[in-house]
Parts: sequence; structure tokens; C-alpha cells
Amino acid sequence: MTQTLTAPARGFERAEFEQRTARLQDAMAAQRIDAVFFCTEPEFRYFSGFKSQFWESPTRPWFLVVPASGRPIAVVPQIGAAGFAETWIDDVRSWPSPRPEDDGVSLLADTLSEVSRTHRRIGAMLGPETHLRMPAANFAALCDRLAQHEMTDASLIVRQLRSVKSAAEIAKIRFACEVTAAGFDYLRSHLRTGMTEREACKAMHLEMLRLGADACPYLISASGPGGYDNIIMGPTDRRLEDGDVLIIDTGANFDGYFSDFDRNYAFGEVGADTHQAYEAVYASTEAGLRVAAPGVTTGEVWQAMWSVLEKAGALGNDVGRMGHGLGMQLTEWPSNVPGGDVVLQSGMILTLEPGMTFAPGRMMVHEENIVITESGCEMLHRRAWPQMPVIG
Amino acid sequence: MTQTLTAPARGFERAEFEQRTARLQDAMAAQRIDAVFFCTEPEFRYFSGFKSQFWESPTRPWFLVVPASGRPIAVVPQIGAAGFAETWIDDVRSWPSPRPEDDGVSLLADTLSEVSRTHRRIGAMLGPETHLRMPAANFAALCDRLAQHEMTDASLIVRQLRSVKSAAEIAKIRFACEVTAAGFDYLRSHLRTGMTEREACKAMHLEMLRLGADACPYLISASGPGGYDNIIMGPTDRRLEDGDVLIIDTGANFDGYFSDFDRNYAFGEVGADTHQAYEAVYASTEAGLRVAAPGVTTGEVWQAMWSVLEKAGALGNDVGRMGHGLGMQLTEWPSNVPGGDVVLQSGMILTLEPGMTFAPGRMMVHEENIVITESGCEMLHRRAWPQMPVIG
Repeated sequence: MTQTLTAPARGFERAEFEQRTARLQDAMAAQRIDAVFFCTEPEFRYFSGFKSQFWESPTRPWFLVVPASGRPIAVVPQIGAAGFAETWIDDVRSWPSPRPEDDGVSLLADTLSEVSRTHRRIGAMLGPETHLRMPAANFAALCDRLAQHEMTDASLIVRQLRSVKSAAEIAKIRFACEVTAAGFDYLRSHLRTGMTEREACKAMHLEMLRLGADACPYLISASGPGGYDNIIMGPTDRRLEDGDVLIIDTGANFDGYFSDFDRNYAFGEVGADTHQAYEAVYASTEAGLRVAAPGVTTGEVWQAMWSVLEKAGALGNDVGRMGHGLGMQLTEWPSNVPGGDVVLQSGMILTLEPGMTFAPGRMMVHEENIVITESGCEMLHRRAWPQMPVIG
Repeated sequence: MTQTLTAPARGFERAEFEQRTARLQDAMAAQRIDAVFFCTEPEFRYFSGFKSQFWESPTRPWFLVVPASGRPIAVVPQIGAAGFAETWIDDVRSWPSPRPEDDGVSLLADTLSEVSRTHRRIGAMLGPETHLRMPAANFAALCDRLAQHEMTDASLIVRQLRSVKSAAEIAKIRFACEVTAAGFDYLRSHLRTGMTEREACKAMHLEMLRLGADACPYLISASGPGGYDNIIMGPTDRRLEDGDVLIIDTGANFDGYFSDFDRNYAFGEVGADTHQAYEAVYASTEAGLRVAAPGVTTGEVWQAMWSVLEKAGALGNDVGRMGHGLGMQLTEWPSNVPGGDVVLQSGMILTLEPGMTFAPGRMMVHEENIVITESGCEMLHRRAWPQMPVIG
């Protein structure tokens, strides 16, 4: 049976960029910030609508300046100027890049000076889970040129804005999730004992692209007798044998938005402890689904899920959290951590990712993607199988 | 005809990591640098052999410290510790991450202090074409904690080292290039008038994965009547019509190494000026192939190629260069630019990328991938067609 899925519309209405920018500008005003500049792809795209795979090339820096009012200003290499015709940005300033002696630094400094004359306070992405995609020496040079200004962190504002998704964003993520779920179903009926991890991942990769994913930038696997010892390496050329458990964890991407969840498969006979571990992480997700709702904290979600794993005899969790935000990036703020104080809001998209080491060197990890609704939460794809599927 | 290609071995011999590290340590000694730390994926992988798709998640920072002698030390989130069992790294220090209040900063500072007691001079990637993949606030905190040390740029050393590829690296890039060339051939026989750019790119994407690419992180297209106005956007849902020129530019990846080249296709009848522009960029590449050799500078390569385009009536070049290094990243140092003074060496891999605006809003860009040999240079895949192929 060849499955087809219907993709939602690409891109966004202009009103969406206007609203995103207005919300940022409201927060900037409250903190007396005159302008914020961005140099990383997700933020650049979020406020401008500029979407290009060219970020894969690390050579040239790109900047977007959001002033206190009005539209963002693009400060970009000449090679990119033509690409803004399709966006809502009308002020595009460019320089011939690469130009190592001044790769946009003076143009960015001049632009920021021009739009930060009130409080002389400029916001940049300096906080947790961010980085500046420009040479560190150039950032130092920029700060020197703006020595009469204060440079302040804007990342806490931006992560808060981005964490609540619009209906159009949710539709894109839901489609990426549906494609991923269909890929896992396909794999369930195509996995065979004797295949390698790499063959399994390639088969799923091709199927997800056929089903409508634009790309699949994250597609890992791990396997071993009765469990696996990591969830971030692979795929390897290891052949799947009777007694193995295979996990595949993947992030498919549609129109710049990710899914991120996993599935586990048993090959032939695996021990009762392994099946019990699977049932424990499944039950832990159920607990997360019951509790996740507006007003609940990430710490409460973590606690609900961890209680189940603790009772099931978890030895620990090397992942460091049990789920996280999801959207333009595979993982976004916030994290489901012990004591986490982020209050969930309607429109947030999260992964629920219970995981534990249940025996030395053997982990079991599960993951689902949800959206917080007005009254609780909703799965963005069909739920995993209550029992671990057995291949062969 | 279903083509198959034979992939080279994955991974590297341990001796290769030993040599890379020893070469870095020689350069460090010459500059009285006690230790260098890395936080970006290519450098981390180059010296450690640690290869994971988990860099897609921006949440957690990762650090590799190369001391004056001995093996590198990994300073990494707990989630990644198990992944080092397959590498030559034996000193793995980890912390429970995410931990926003101290995400590796103190552990990295302690490790750097421990191994930089001679000159108190620490190298970091601060220069052109780099960025620090850690929060800027954390880098500032790290510098504060290491206030008794000098932080100096190590990026010029590292880009020099990485620019000369080993035989094993060349084999991986050559395979990625062969897959890409085969993908373009496949497309030549499968393109049809009326297809969209997106359908064309998807067909090529699937074919390259089938032929052995692990991923294809860069796959763009542009099209228009008699030419295109950019080479970094797309693919779009634009339907290819008679009179159009389509360019596809792609970077396929095998075992962590890229190809990067393009092909142009005409649909039905296109103007003589367009065919002439194609022939000019083809001839420009020929000029580059004749001149590229050890001892020649990147400026001389640029000049040889530009002379041809100038004679052909080029109006300009918005790309900013005509080719660049290639390897673990889609684009690497150096650039073929006017006056470029980087001296080519045997083992360097470059793209030759002549491009010009030949009429207002209409560009023609060509690209091939070469390796510098002892006596000249060699294509890493079959050459483009001397005339632009005509579809339909």
C-alpha cells in the first residue's frame, strides 16, 4: 500500500511576520531596547521569512536588525540580496562578501547606530541554547564600534515568543510528524533480521522524502542485545539480530519545521525486562499526556513522567531531561527538567521523552510530539504501539 | 539503467587522527600555545573522530581540548559520553546537560587551566569563516575564569591544516562527487517540461540517496526565462517552461564529506546569448583547470577564469568569488578571489565556480570540484557537458 499525505500550504501570510515583529517590539519597548540583531538562521527566518539552504555554507555572516518600530532591515552578503524579493523586507543592505577584513561589521554597526539613538541599548542573542553565527573577533570589533551603546541579552524574550506557535506553524509541524509516523509504520513492515542499522535508516529516509518531507537532517539509530547504550550516534553497519532492540530517532523537516520522535523495535525474542522497560516508558508518556496543559510547569510534567520510571526501577537518565520544545529547530526551549518552572501555554509544542537506563549499559527511550491546547494537550501524530513490535 | 557506485571505507585509521593532532601541536608549539579548544562540529570531528548527527540540536555545547602533547580531551554533555567508545579519545569529561547555570563552562575552564600552565596561552577559533558554538555569555564567562591566560586566535592554523586533505578524505569527497554527477545525469534523462523545480530537486535527492549519499543537506535550484537571478534560494513550485534555464546546485554528503557543484539545463528553445553564457562559463572552468596547480595562488586561478568571462561580456559577479575549498563543510577556506594570495598545495580540494551576470537579472554559474595534484589538478567527477543540455 502506497500511502500519500497532504501537505499544508508553504510559507506564511504577511500578517504573521507583522505580528511576530510587533510582539518582539512590545517586549523590546518594555526593556528599553532600541534594536535587536540576529545572525542565526531560525531567528533570521522567523522575523524575515527569508528561507534558504545557503546557511549550510559557513563562509559569510548574515544579519537581521529589528528596530523599535517598522520592518526588520536585512544586512546581508550581495549573493543573498535577490532572495529578499519574495519576503516582506524592503530595506536590504549588502556588501561584497567574502571580505574577511570587514565582513559586514561596519555595515551592521552603522545600521545599528542609526536605529538605536533613544536608549542606546542593543539586544543580541547571548543566552542559553544560542550562539552568535559570526566570527568571535568580529563580534568583539562590533562591540568596540558600538562602545557608546549597551549590548544586552535578548534571547529570553525571543525564546518566549518563539515557543508559542501559530496555527500555520502547528500545521507544518503536524505534517512533519505525520510523515515521520508513517515512516515508522513503513519500517515496521519492512524491517528484517539481518538488515543493518544503516539500511533500516536509509529505507526510512527514502520513504519520508517520498511522503513529503523536504529533508531529514536527523536520523539516528542504536541497537544491541536487549537494549542500547546511547541515543545520539549511528546509524552503524551493525546487523540486527535476534534478541536485539533497535531505536530510531528522527527529525523530519517540512517547510522549515521539524518533527522529533522515536520508535523501538524488538528482533525475535528479547527478555521480559526489556519489554517491561518499553511498557514503563510508554506508561510514562501516558502520565505526561495526562498532566501537560496550560498553567502546568515543565517540572510538573517531568515529575509525572519520572514517577512512573522510578517505580519501574530506573537506574538513571543520561539524557538530562525528558522532552523539550520543538519547531524551527529539532530541539528548542524549554526543557522538561526536575524543578522546571516554565509554565506551559496553549500553542506550545513539546516532545515528551521519557528515558531511563534500566540495566547497566541498556537504555530505553520513548518520544512523542504534542501541542498544548486550551484545555490540555493533543498528540501531533498517532501514538506509539503500546507493546514493542516484534520483527521476525 | 540502474547505476551503482562503490563507496569507500567509512571512518579513518587511528594514525590519521594522530597525524592531524601532531600537526596541530607542531603549529601550537611554534606559537607558544598550550592548548586549543574547539566547539564546532567539523573541528571536533576532525581531531576526535566523533561523528554524530546530534549537533542538529542547539541545546547543549560540546568542547574538545587539544593540549600541547598527547590526545585531545572531550568535555561533553553526559548524553554524549558513551559515543566516545568508538573513538581514539580516552579522556572524556562530562556534566549533566542541559544545565543553563553552568553548561560546561567550569569544567572547560578547569580542563584548560590544567593543560595550559607553560605559556598560559589558549587558542580558540575566532577568525574568518568561524563561529563559537556556545552562548556568547558563556564565552565571556569562560574568558573571565581564565583571566590569567591569554586567549588567541587559532583559526588560521586550523584552516591551513584542514585545507590539505589526506588520501582517505579525498576518497570520500570523490565518492560524494561521483554520486552527485550521477544524480545530474539521472536528472538529464528524467527532467520534463511542466515539472516544478521542487519535483526536479526531489527526484535528484532520492536518486543521490539511492546511489549512496548519506544525506544531501544542500540542494537548491533557480530557473527563469533565459537565466536566473540568484543561486542560493529555491527550490520553488515554479513550473519549468519552454525557454527556461534551470540551475541545480547541490552538496551531497558521504561519511561527513561534501561534494559541491551545479548543472544547468535549458528547456526547449533559449536565446543565443544564454547558450553563449553557458559556453563562456564552461571555457572559464577550462581556464581554471589549466592553471590550478601547486605553487599557483587563488588570485591567479581567479584571474585566469575571470579573463574569459570578461571577454564574454560579463556585467558582474554577485557571488563574490569563483570557487572555494571543500571538504567537511560545503564551503571551506580558501576563496578564489581577485588578488587572493593563498598558494595552492597538493591535496587541496577546491571548487572552480565561474559565474556572471550576462544580462540584467540573468546569471549563469558553473561549478566543478577538483583536487590539486603534484603537477596540476584533477577533476573529482566527470566534467559538465560542453553545451547546455536541452530538455524537451
